[in-house]
Parts: sequence; C-alpha cells; structure tokens
Amino acid sequence: MADKKVEAITSRDEDFAQWYTDVVVKADLTGYTSVKGFMVLKPAGYAIWELIQSQLDKRFKETGVENVYMPLLIPEGLLQKEKDHVEGFAPEVAWVTHGGLSELQERLCVRPTSETLFCDFYQKDITSYRDLPKVYNQWCSVVRWEKETRPFLRSREFLWQEGHTAHATAEEAEERTIQMLNVYADFCENVLAMPVVKGQKTEKEKFAGAVSTYTIEALMHDGKALQSGTSHNFGDGFAKAYGVQYADKDNQLKYVHQTSWGVTTRLIGAIIMVHGDDNGLKLPPLVAPTQVMIVPIMQKKEGVIEKADELCERLSKVARVKVDKTDKSPGFKFAECEMRGIPIRVEVGPRDIENNECVLVRRDNGEKITVNMDNLEQEVSTLLETIQKDMLETARAHRDAHTYTAKNWDEFKDIVENKPGFIKAMWCGETECEDNIKAETGATTRCMPFEQEEISDVCVCCGKPAKKMVYFGRAY
Amino acid sequence: MADKKVEAITSRDEDFAQWYTDVVVKADLTGYTSVKGFMVLKPAGYAIWELIQSQLDKRFKETGVENVYMPLLIPEGLLQKEKDHVEGFAPEVAWVTHGGLSELQERLCVRPTSETLFCDFYQKDITSYRDLPKVYNQWCSVVRWEKETRPFLRSREFLWQEGHTAHATAEEAEERTIQMLNVYADFCENVLAMPVVKGQKTEKEKFAGAVSTYTIEALMHDGKALQSGTSHNFGDGFAKAYGVQYADKDNQLKYVHQTSWGVTTRLIGAIIMVHGDDNGLKLPPLVAPTQVMIVPIMQKKEGVIEKADELCERLSKVARVKVDKTDKSPGFKFAECEMRGIPIRVEVGPRDIENNECVLVRRDNGEKITVNMDNLEQEVSTLLETIQKDMLETARAHRDAHTYTAKNWDEFKDIVENKPGFIKAMWCGETECEDNIKAETGATTRCMPFEQEEISDVCVCCGKPAKKMVYFGRAY
Repeated sequence: MADKKVEAITSRDEDFAQWYTDVVVKADLTGYTSVKGFMVLKPAGYAIWELIQSQLDKRFKETGVENVYMPLLIPEGLLQKEKDHVEGFAPEVAWVTHGGLSELQERLCVRPTSETLFCDFYQKDITSYRDLPKVYNQWCSVVRWEKETRPFLRSREFLWQEGHTAHATAEEAEERTIQMLNVYADFCENVLAMPVVKGQKTEKEKFAGAVSTYTIEALMHDGKALQSGTSHNFGDGFAKAYGVQYADKDNQLKYVHQTSWGVTTRLIGAIIMVHGDDNGLKLPPLVAPTQVMIVPIMQKKEGVIEKADELCERLSKVARVKVDKTDKSPGFKFAECEMRGIPIRVEVGPRDIENNECVLVRRDNGEKITVNMDNLEQEVSTLLETIQKDMLETARAHRDAHTYTAKNWDEFKDIVENKPGFIKAMWCGETECEDNIKAETGATTRCMPFEQEEISDVCVCCGKPAKKMVYFGRAY
Repeated sequence: MADKKVEAITSRDEDFAQWYTDVVVKADLTGYTSVKGFMVLKPAGYAIWELIQSQLDKRFKETGVENVYMPLLIPEGLLQKEKDHVEGFAPEVAWVTHGGLSELQERLCVRPTSETLFCDFYQKDITSYRDLPKVYNQWCSVVRWEKETRPFLRSREFLWQEGHTAHATAEEAEERTIQMLNVYADFCENVLAMPVVKGQKTEKEKFAGAVSTYTIEALMHDGKALQSGTSHNFGDGFAKAYGVQYADKDNQLKYVHQTSWGVTTRLIGAIIMVHGDDNGLKLPPLVAPTQVMIVPIMQKKEGVIEKADELCERLSKVARVKVDKTDKSPGFKFAECEMRGIPIRVEVGPRDIENNECVLVRRDNGEKITVNMDNLEQEVSTLLETIQKDMLETARAHRDAHTYTAKNWDEFKDIVENKPGFIKAMWCGETECEDNIKAETGATTRCMPFEQEEISDVCVCCGKPAKKMVYFGRAY
C-alpha cells in the first residue's frame, strides 16, 4: 500500500483535474465510502480542517462571536417562510419522511444552511434592544444534493461554519457583513497563504434571500477561480418573513437586520490547488498537521535514532514535529514527506552528527540548508515563518501574473481562450450581459471588487455605459 | 427578560425534575426550537461542550487517537449487515427518502451511530497488519427518534464523540476498550468533578452487536443513576459481517478486532444534576466558560470601574474572567453569577480599593474570603484549584452516603423505596432475575463493577448461588 503513495502522480500542467484527484488520494486526505457523493475525511485531511477551525474560531471570538448549536433537521413549513430562500434551496435538499417506524406528519429537510432555524430561534429569543446584537456561529455539516461531486470542492455533505447575526440597525448589519469578510480575507492570506480578491456579488450571483452578498475569490494554479468564502447582508427580509422584532428604546417594535457568513472544507481544495505541485501537496506551515519531519539517515548506525529523537524532543517546543523511523529507504521517506506537503524535512545521519550539523529541506522550493544543531529550534522556527511568507508571495505573484485586463469583447474572448486567469473588465450592470458572457465563454462574474479601476467607460460585452469594473473568470 | 433569570427556581429537594428544567432554562443553556424533540444549545451551554471537547480530545490524542469525519447518512443495505446492530437501531432512526426532487432508489438513515460506516471504510482501507491498529474518532451529532425527550438527557439529536478502532488481536482490542473507559473515568473525576463507578454491563444491557460493554455510572443528587460513557469490545463480529480482514505477518487473512466508545452532551446534564443547588448551576472550574466574574460595587464612584478592569486584565492571565458593568444592582448580579454557576465572584468597591483588598466569593460553598489585591492572581488561581478539588470531594461524599448494600430481597425493596441511591447486591447472572427486579422495583443493573465485593453468596432476587456483585439503581 505504502508504495502507491509515492508513485509518480499525473503532471499538474498536463491534466490538472487528474493531478488534483491523485494528490487528494495519495496524500491520504480522503477515503472510500459507499455512500454516493459523500466524503470521508481521513486523519491527514481532517487534521487540516482542525487547524483551520481552531485558528478561524479564535479570530471569530476576538470579534465577539459566540458559538451555538442548532437542530440538524428543518420542518418543511419553516423552510418555506422566506420565498427566495426556499426557491434557492428546495431543489437540492434531502428529505426525512420517516422517524423510527412511522411516517412523519410533516417532512423535515436535512439543513442545507440554517438561516431559517436561526430566525425561528431569534424570533423567540429577542424581545428588546437589550438583547441585541446576537453574534452567533455554528460549526457543523450541511447537506446539498449535488449531482456532480469532487472531493472538497463539491460534495453532498460538507463541513463548514455558518455565522448568523441579528442587529438593531441596517448600518450595524452592513458593518458586521464586511467585518467578517475581512476576517476571512485576512485568514486566507495570513494562514492559508492564499491571496484573495474582496468584492460584491452581482444580483444574479448573490445568495437566495440576501440583499447583498460579498465574497473572497481566489485563483487556482490552473487559472480557474474559486469562491472561497461569502458574507451576506439580509437587511430585514428574513426578519419580516419570520417576525423577528424587538422593542427599541423608544418602545417601538422594529425588525432586526441580519447577516450570515460561511467558509467550508472547500478551503482544503483551495490549499491543494493554489500551492501543490508535481510532487504532491504543499501545506502552509500554519495549517500543516506535521510541520517538520525528521528523517534519520543510515538509521541502523549507533546513535542516529537517538539523535533524531533528541532533536524531535527539542523541536517539539517550537513546531509540530515527528521522526520517521519506519524501515523504508530515505529516498522513499523524502518522497512521502513531499507528497504529504510537510513544510520542512530534517535529514540527520552519522556524518551530520559528527559535524554537529543537520540539513533542512524546504518543501516549498526544495532549498537545502545546512545548519548547526545547536541553533536548531531557532533555525526551524524562523524557517517556518519564512516559508509561510514566501508561499503567500509565490501565490500572489502567480495570481498577479494571471490577472488580465480586457478593454473590449475581442480581447475578452482571446484571454478566456488562451490565458486562464482572472479577467478585469467593465460591465453595464445588466444580467443579460452576464448571461451572454457566460453562454459564449463559460466565464462568470466573480465579483465587483472593492478596489475599482476604470479600464474603459463602456461594458465589455454590450458597449453601453459601464457601471462597474468586474472580475470575470471560469470557476470551480 | 433578565429579571426572570434570577427569579427563584423550584427547590431541588421538592421537585427535582422541575428544578432541572428551571436551571437549564434560567442558566441560559438551551433555547427554543420548533423542531420537536431537538435541542438548541445557546452560548452558555455550547461553551461547556467546547471545554469538554477540547480537554477530552487532548486526552484522546495522548493515547494515539486520530480524528476523522464519516458521512452523515447510511444506506439501508449497509446498516443491515450486522444483525443485532440493525435490530437495536432500526426502530429509532430517521429515514431520508428523497434527495432534491427525486425519490432515492435506496433510503438512507441519519446516523444513529457510525459502526457500519467505519466498517465499510476499514474494509477498503485495511489490507495488511502494517495498517493496524486504526484508532479513529469523530466529533459529530447523531439522531435517534426518541419518544420522550429532556434537554441533554434524551433528545432526538445530540452531540457526541464516537471512537472506532480496529486491531490485529483480541487482546489489543480489549486493552483499548478498557483504556478508553479509564480515560472517561479520569476525565469525569478530574475535570467534571464527578466520581464514577467503572464496570461491565450485563448481557441484557450491553450495546447491540457488542461482545462486551463497559460503562461509567454516576449518581445524581436525587439518587438516580446516569450512564455517563460506554466503551464496547466488538470482538470480530462486525469484521465478519463487513469482511474487514488483513494479511498477517504469516500471510494469512485474518479478521480485525474492533472497539467503539462514546460520551455525549448528556455529560452536561450530569454536571447540572451532580453539582447544582437551589441557586442554580455550579460549574467545576475546568468546564466553566467564565471562571471569575468581577462585580464592581458602587460602580459609579470614581475609580471603581477602572480598578475592576485592571483586575480583569491581570486575572485574564490565570483564568477566564469577565467584569459585569451592566446597570443591574449588585444583588441582582450576584444572583445571576450564582444561577450561571460561575465558580468565583470577585467584589470590589470603594472601601475595598481604599484597603487594597477585594472579596472572593466561592460558588460551591458560599464562603467569602477577603484578600490583598497584590496577590490576586495567586489567590484566584489557587482557589480555582481548591474549588475543583472540593467539588469532587463533595460529590464523592454524597455518592458514598447514598450507596447502600442489600443482602436480601426485603432489604433491596426497602432501599429502592426509601433511600434513593446505588444499591450493591449479589446476582445469579440470569436475565430473568434482572427482569423481575426491574418489573417489581424499577431498578436496573447499572454495572458489574470492576471492584467486586462479596456481600453474600446468593442472588438477592432468586436466592440461587450468586455470580457477581452488581450496582443497581433507578436511572435516567
């Protein structure tokens, strides 16, 4: 079995989709299940999610978020109260019709998202302005009955967090919506080493039931875009549908303003597709379950294993570290470390010990660095920071090199066909043009970025006066 | 709204069931949902679960456990492969029959527990003795279609962890089963301050599909028992039903030996019922989301709020601490701290500041301690440890004082009727006697404790030769 893991994988530039599947399997991230369209997260995959979860949760809590847990199942009647929302989700939910041996009077859907449950709860829990704001979040799984599935990117069940907040004013809701988008963007850049474009979704692309949807969009190595997190401002639409009101200081009953925001295990797919290469996964140190693997060389020689254990003990104070003592060859172990994306490999053999040195090998760029053993903690600690920073810079350089500007329709079509990446272009604001662009090129509006530029004054598609600069791209 | 929280609750000794419900609601642990039989965990309730989860997860990982995630839904055909198991669970599962707009070819149940999914996975993932052992765990929710529900104790959905392991030998599986039971027992005593009796379930009470089930049993304040965690040894029964085999060193195909073990949000119910009193919840410091609440006295006087903030800042290095700056009266704040079970209240007012002192009030026994402000970190830190220890001792004394010995049937009936608690008695080993005892008294076998005593040599019920000393009790 072990052999297969380091067999050569499909080349990334030859067949990106197959390369992706190979990495997922050979880095041991997901496993077999006979439940069609569902995913098993194996230890190596789930441990990445745990690191995402703990670091993101900490950032949430710093902004005042509190965690809660809502029911898994939603009665059909409750789902149906907000019209746009039920239209958006009803076609893709799983329905529970029997509990135990009896048929249910009202069927229940497995939550595809929990706006309706939070509204139902807030309707009872909020009575006065003193109860506001509510800034709640839950970590859970949701089910959406997708037809085509791919590990991490699209599956019938995925893990995520969903934040749901209620505020006294529209301004405060908008502020929270943007605040959480910024938390996501900062997390993606500084933890996942993945630069993102922040912006607003168009009417066509916004969430079912939202007034406005904001998004962070990342560019994968193959030039396709990945929506990596969204934050929605609901205004008082859900509050009106579910009767979520509060008595204000002036004793008037008013509707609350709500938001929701989420990221999913899809982020693991993004890590793979932004950073990985032909040797496998490349994990940014902050989300690497094992940050340092010590590989003893000529491990049967006296003192080698002992020295490796000693270094491991010392390094465990500054990093998540392991020693590979299996009876595989060093070359095999190296390849396995690379496949699994471990940021630093430490090689230590008899000659190194004699010289009081060891060799650090960076996964991100292959560089080998000989260091004095006495300073190992400091060297490794600094190198992990450097790798984290360099991976972001490499990803940013790739993203920038694959972001193009289209002034007119011919340029647009040429870029879509020949230069996979983001396309910045002007847009008139009409859904018809979005539809035409998608039909003719497969590119969709990714977002109207907060940082606008004036590329031209007419729509790239219809030539009418332009309203917004938009990022377009083919997307996952 | 806030007023209601500190209204007097039902007296614990008058109506324990109503007292329990009052505490759950007024300590803000659970919330309203229109999904019948399901539970909303509000921030105060969920935060306790987060503390249970993080501390238990750490203990698991120290024994080599790795976390994974398995699908939420189980195909009917997969569930049916192990006969006892499906008989045990089929009557109480929720069935998904439709995905999106179409009816499913095979219905899927929402996991009531995941043995079948782990077997399905292990069957593909394990090929050689080199792949063993597998020591996996998942944190998730499960659904069981209960008829009667009570918050934390019995609900249609609950949060839990379920460990599932596969081993080469029967001995190793038995060792892991006991190891995890010990992890649970140690956790309950040293984190939840709740003493437990460790032992084995009888044939009648064991898990559907297990060879043997071990349990930890705790005694609630009202003298009823609560099964607080279980650990099962499956032998190779599931492995044979699901074909989970490995090639051993001798190249022979052998079946693996499996275990599973779990604890649930029920532990929160146990905390309430072991420690709570007529003023509300009492949280052991290690699972108290807020360990110290600072209440400023005469807070409008100059310097009081500032001093409270300063103390909070200092204490945040050694404890989870907050300041209550709301405009409620001190008396109201005190009552609220008590209702929520916060282990230490710190009172600080103008005269305290003048004397460079403040008053610490223990939630567990009401003791007031005046301390010099200069040593506050050390005082609080030590006091939290003392409270943790004292709460365990108090619970142990209560448990011991309510553990009785019945030598014969008359004594047994008298104890059940008049002295709620554990009853130690001898048993012949026959299910018929268990059934009779239950029918006549409502008491069930809680466990055959590891620490056996010879109370007499005949069965307390039938008078035939006794095989085991058993803990009996009425249970939740």
